Amino acid sequence: MSKLIVDISQSADGYVAGPGVALDAPFGSAGLRLHRWHGLDGAAPTEGDKAASAAMFDNTGAIVLGRRMFDVGEEPGGADGAFGLPCFVVTSRPRPVLVKGPTTFTFVTDGLLSAIALAHAAAGDRDIVVPGGAAVVQQCLAAGVVDELRVHVVPVLLGGGTPLFGAVPAHRELEPTQVVATHLATHITYRLSR
Amino acid sequence: MSKLIVDISQSADGYVAGPGVALDAPFGSAGLRLHRWHGLDGAAPTEGDKAASAAMFDNTGAIVLGRRMFDVGEEPGGADGAFGLPCFVVTSRPRPVLVKGPTTFTFVTDGLLSAIALAHAAAGDRDIVVPGGAAVVQQCLAAGVVDELRVHVVPVLLGGGTPLFGAVPAHRELEPTQVVATHLATHITYRLSR
Repeated sequence: MSKLIVDISQSADGYVAGPGVALDAPFGSAGLRLHRWHGLDGAAPTEGDKAASAAMFDNTGAIVLGRRMFDVGEEPGGADGAFGLPCFVVTSRPRPVLVKGPTTFTFVTDGLLSAIALAHAAAGDRDIVVPGGAAVVQQCLAAGVVDELRVHVVPVLLGGGTPLFGAVPAHRELEPTQVVATHLATHITYRLSR
Repeated sequence: MSKLIVDISQSADGYVAGPGVALDAPFGSAGLRLHRWHGLDGAAPTEGDKAASAAMFDNTGAIVLGRRMFDVGEEPGGADGAFGLPCFVVTSRPRPVLVKGPTTFTFVTDGLLSAIALAHAAAGDRDIVVPGGAAVVQQCLAAGVVDELRVHVVPVLLGGGTPLFGAVPAHRELEPTQVVATHLATHITYRLSR
């Protein structure tokens, strides 16, 4: 059964990016700090971190992401588009389909649920992963379409920036199904009942 | 060597209380949800939860807490004052020392650092624990006096309320030293370098 999975890194104080996010500073003042556990920024991920990185694509058939995340990732993603999957970009600004090697970016202008429907069609029995940004994650939670939430809690206080959680409807129970702790991150998987 | 330890429960989205905090609703709409792992509210804590509860007092010689936390806990704390330790309440409103069985509450009106100094004198070689509220925790982090941060992340999204972290100085590195995962909470201990 295909699931919709949010998979995102946050600081211990709940931010997905530091202050000062811009096209040339996608994570603001935090730089790559929140993604060091992927092996970026010279860090040496442990087996637990590598497993968490791999799990993001293990059974994934499509990606749904926000427009800002696409914009800031377009150049760093390189010629193959990084994801190697059909990607659906939630946006208000239309743009033709973009093919980058094994990755296709489809720009969906009629809302999150439409992007998710297209992703489901593309993914078949495989899962849909939402890697961000925070606005799209919050929309997914508000719409009640999230089956699983994977939060990678990075041991740093940023003191400000883009909060992961915002206007999420009050009191939503979660069920932790897996916790993997390394010195680079605490990887927590929660199941949500729809 | 005596340490200053912040020990506090938060929701997965970073709140220590839901909306609507009042004297008769100390955790607002969240009720006792964030403290179920202590065995409150009919829950059955596991060994991991019990160990996390016990650790709060294992080597503790004094408590520093905020005035609101004192006020909302005064009645529920009962005749013995719950803590069984010298407690120092950071407040702007003076009040004579209050003795409740083995617990003494000293009201300190000349600031957090003064309360911590008194707590150190009372605790000797034992640790000082700061159980909240959020305002005092944030003051401790801003003052750079925290040696250890124990966060009990409860699997629920509250969607609003009192955030644990606020105006904390930017980019403070943490070192996770222990993670204990149960179905009721993910108990994370961080070391901070002063």
